[in-house]
Amino acid sequence: MEKCHIAIAGLGVVGAETARHLIEKQSILSEKAGTSLTLTAISARAKGKDRGFDMSGLTWCDNPVDLANLADVDVVVELMGGSEGPALALTKAALSAGKHVVTANKAMIALHGVELAQLAEEKGVQICFESSVAGGIPALKILREGLAANDISSVSGILNGTCNYILSEMEETGRPFDDVLKEAQELGYAEADPTFDVDGIDAAHKLTILDAIAYGNVPDFDKLSITGIRDVSAEDISFAAELGYRIRLIGRATSEGVACVEPVFLPEASALAKVTGPLNAVYYEASPVNTISATGPGAGAGPTASAVLADIIDVAAGRHSFAFGKPVALLSKATVSDEALVTSGYYLRLEVADEKGVLAAVTDILKSHDISVETLIQKIHEEDKSASLVMVLHETDQASMAAAALQLSSMSDVHSTSRAFTVLR
Amino acid sequence: MEKCHIAIAGLGVVGAETARHLIEKQSILSEKAGTSLTLTAISARAKGKDRGFDMSGLTWCDNPVDLANLADVDVVVELMGGSEGPALALTKAALSAGKHVVTANKAMIALHGVELAQLAEEKGVQICFESSVAGGIPALKILREGLAANDISSVSGILNGTCNYILSEMEETGRPFDDVLKEAQELGYAEADPTFDVDGIDAAHKLTILDAIAYGNVPDFDKLSITGIRDVSAEDISFAAELGYRIRLIGRATSEGVACVEPVFLPEASALAKVTGPLNAVYYEASPVNTISATGPGAGAGPTASAVLADIIDVAAGRHSFAFGKPVALLSKATVSDEALVTSGYYLRLEVADEKGVLAAVTDILKSHDISVETLIQKIHEEDKSASLVMVLHETDQASMAAAALQLSSMSDVHSTSRAFTVLR
Repeated sequence: MEKCHIAIAGLGVVGAETARHLIEKQSILSEKAGTSLTLTAISARAKGKDRGFDMSGLTWCDNPVDLANLADVDVVVELMGGSEGPALALTKAALSAGKHVVTANKAMIALHGVELAQLAEEKGVQICFESSVAGGIPALKILREGLAANDISSVSGILNGTCNYILSEMEETGRPFDDVLKEAQELGYAEADPTFDVDGIDAAHKLTILDAIAYGNVPDFDKLSITGIRDVSAEDISFAAELGYRIRLIGRATSEGVACVEPVFLPEASALAKVTGPLNAVYYEASPVNTISATGPGAGAGPTASAVLADIIDVAAGRHSFAFGKPVALLSKATVSDEALVTSGYYLRLEVADEKGVLAAVTDILKSHDISVETLIQKIHEEDKSASLVMVLHETDQASMAAAALQLSSMSDVHSTSRAFTVLR
Repeated sequence: MEKCHIAIAGLGVVGAETARHLIEKQSILSEKAGTSLTLTAISARAKGKDRGFDMSGLTWCDNPVDLANLADVDVVVELMGGSEGPALALTKAALSAGKHVVTANKAMIALHGVELAQLAEEKGVQICFESSVAGGIPALKILREGLAANDISSVSGILNGTCNYILSEMEETGRPFDDVLKEAQELGYAEADPTFDVDGIDAAHKLTILDAIAYGNVPDFDKLSITGIRDVSAEDISFAAELGYRIRLIGRATSEGVACVEPVFLPEASALAKVTGPLNAVYYEASPVNTISATGPGAGAGPTASAVLADIIDVAAGRHSFAFGKPVALLSKATVSDEALVTSGYYLRLEVADEKGVLAAVTDILKSHDISVETLIQKIHEEDKSASLVMVLHETDQASMAAAALQLSSMSDVHSTSRAFTVLR
């Protein structure tokens, strides 16, 4: 475009950082875009606040949706968050008014992405959301453009820095989940209400977007199987280490229709297992390229602003991509994998009575479901005559594993069972 | 563009793989590009050979340069290689004729990139070379577009898979360079004439391109300091391990003007040290994004074709990028770092006479250059009354290190010295 006028809605840390760069680095960013970039309008909850950049000369809107109707705006940057409400209203209004939209809003894209992409196509504008997945890593650009010619067999990754921080800390210190979560909240790594992060919802929003682009699907949040990390125990982390694994919250979508977010066992030598702390990492298995991985900060003002600004520059430079890699009309309905066909190894821990015959009964049940044991650790707890039976099981299908786990948990000698963790090799 | 007709010059493994994809996956690749992609013309040395795809219906040119003048061609894909000769002639002719060029030719871009980019700008077409750096990793797209808004403080990486394979093998087996090179040649990991790889030239071509894009410089191969891996000894690899380091051939360009390819010591826990075998990896340190890294196959038919096809799709989709991130007129002359200002830690091994006073004399010389020792290992070789003095030295500048190394090597009690390896933390 000849010149590019930009409005930002939402001036939290990401919005303020984005605005500051647009103002202070206007000339260099304009050079990169090949056209002049100018921040012209803003909207946020409180007008008076000092946000570290000069707001004079900018049009202020009390109601963010009003940004959509300013004549002097070509690109609306939505950084308010929330899948519905003002964010969705502004995005629809801006696209309808023929303005490009750049957003970091993973929930909105996961839940309303196809409708918004459709609207953008109708109006001949773009909706960009690079910053919504894996923060500063250009994870969507790599997939949609860099690997455009590939058949993707799987895309997987560590998509939530809070969970990775918590799991790394639990691993390093041996402390239980609740303890580490509390500390993460005090340090600002976790929200006061950590639900979206620790229950896997945030990672699932991101995986929905990756899955749609990787497989040309209509994004479908509801097809995902989602398990968070609340039930990952210090015991399982410790047994994982003993067995040569680490537990990571992995989002994984495959060409067979698997789309799940869950804590999984990864061999400690694998690339994703080595990612510690609040980082994100994305892993692409594809043909003809083979395996590509990218690692970086998944959140924070700087990394997120980096991706938001990259989207603004792409739009201003006229680099057009379809939101999900293809025109909406060509997207397919997401397929859901067949539980009976998806196989993997599993880890299972049973707390049992330390009685004769229990181990035999357990392996009999597994055998009746055609599941064989790869590794077994038995730890006797003398104090209460109980034992931990820890098993890594050979490749089996989800349905058999679920049936076997149910049957095992109903045995009278089994006091409790861990989750049947997927083991990826 | 409305439809995109493609010609390929050079049908070696990469050219044949690219052609095969364009033919067999025409419909899906066209969907991604938003326009129909058709391979229409080819050129190679020998016409008759079976290359695994159907050549009937394609225009054949004995002289590759003739592809530039076919009416039915919009994009010319140059996969012949060589910085001069037919590759350069074809590229110039194609751009002059107003055709886009996609090439994997790192040597040609490193040496003639600015002239070709200028010609492309004049003719309103693109010259794309994603596949020339780090093979299947979209390393240039990440830098030029994904991190467009960032100030890059350094870009570094493992840019030559052959060298990384050789160093990994030496590390694992303790065998000397010549042995491992010979085996790598037998396995097809190294060329019969390995000069370009093992002397660092190939990595330096790639680094020239990364440096130009990262810092908006005219690509300047001549400013690079280049050291290959021929002189990396089994002894130094073994001492590196003892000290907690690994030796990797690293290409590194910094905002201070450092642009060098050399074997360096990396802490074994660092991401680049963990990259083993024939992989490539690129590391971006940037603000505001912080650190982003990407890993993947740096060579081979599939990975290279993946990047070539991505460029073709970008061109066909009308996604325009300036070859070096900015219009040629805005590129600066590359700055060369001042040896006195660039500092790093160093590793140095001296083979000395096992005599009293040698160690004191050595440390005196280092002290006179203001260099202090961080770690010292002394290994006595009883058989010939000699000793290895192995030192990791604190941060010092290049000029002081060079002067000290020269003075040390001229001591009568010093039989030989290793290279002063840069130690990156």
